[in-house]
Amino acid sequence: MNPQAPDAIEQLTPEECLELLGQSTVGRLAVIVENHPDIFPVNYVVDRGSIVFRTGAGTKFWSSMRDPCALEIDGFDADTAKAWSVVVRGEARIIVDRQEVEAADALRLDPWQPGSKTHYLRLNLYSVTGRRFTTTRPDIWRTPVRDARTELFH
Amino acid sequence: MNPQAPDAIEQLTPEECLELLGQSTVGRLAVIVENHPDIFPVNYVVDRGSIVFRTGAGTKFWSSMRDPCALEIDGFDADTAKAWSVVVRGEARIIVDRQEVEAADALRLDPWQPGSKTHYLRLNLYSVTGRRFTTTRPDIWRTPVRDARTELFH
Repeated sequence: MNPQAPDAIEQLTPEECLELLGQSTVGRLAVIVENHPDIFPVNYVVDRGSIVFRTGAGTKFWSSMRDPCALEIDGFDADTAKAWSVVVRGEARIIVDRQEVEAADALRLDPWQPGSKTHYLRLNLYSVTGRRFTTTRPDIWRTPVRDARTELFH
Repeated sequence: MNPQAPDAIEQLTPEECLELLGQSTVGRLAVIVENHPDIFPVNYVVDRGSIVFRTGAGTKFWSSMRDPCALEIDGFDADTAKAWSVVVRGEARIIVDRQEVEAADALRLDPWQPGSKTHYLRLNLYSVTGRRFTTTRPDIWRTPVRDARTELFH
């Protein structure tokens, strides 16, 4: 094995990607709406190897029925000063089975935003890729969050 | 004016959106690659009302030359327990003017990831939309970040 250069981009294994997906709860969903990409933050759960999320009957619902989707999550590990990003690609299908819906509810699948989110969608993955890398300038990862999140939710 | 319901989704003004864009440095860029949406985290700066970012000559570069893009940022304000999301839509054009490139560098436009990011792209906005809302369950905003970010970068 060659020692990895400090600035190398490390490809994550599918197992690592799925583990990171399981640890996260909010992703950004990209869909194609009238030939234009659009992005929405969504809350999701991993259920039996696929991604389940809720949506209202708006843009997200209809476009995800017609088109493939991509869901991205990312994060920064201050211990190692490494950032990571995972992208899953797939097609979303509405869940009609009542037991499947109840199983998703049991996994604490709550919508991220208020409003009626009556549809449950399952994103069947046909590719999962991920990368981990040392950020060239860690401070650019800074977000405008006034962040008491970790205090609040520990 | 009607009092706003606590769970209302508040539309942000373009001015508020641009202010949030100016406060943030990392967004998620959605592009269409072979009829499939894809997402990449990118570091960006706001320069004269448009978004400037760097990229290598890979997928991001070529697809953004052919297709429209969407850039999304979001955050959570623990003071108000409200989350927000801003999406800009537009088309990216490569910056060839040396002075423009230098102006972007002066705004501390560094790539988020290592690797050669030789191309500078300007995303000319043709729509900016944003929403602010009380999260139905604030803890789902939790990310897997082991977060010393705010300590590190204050």
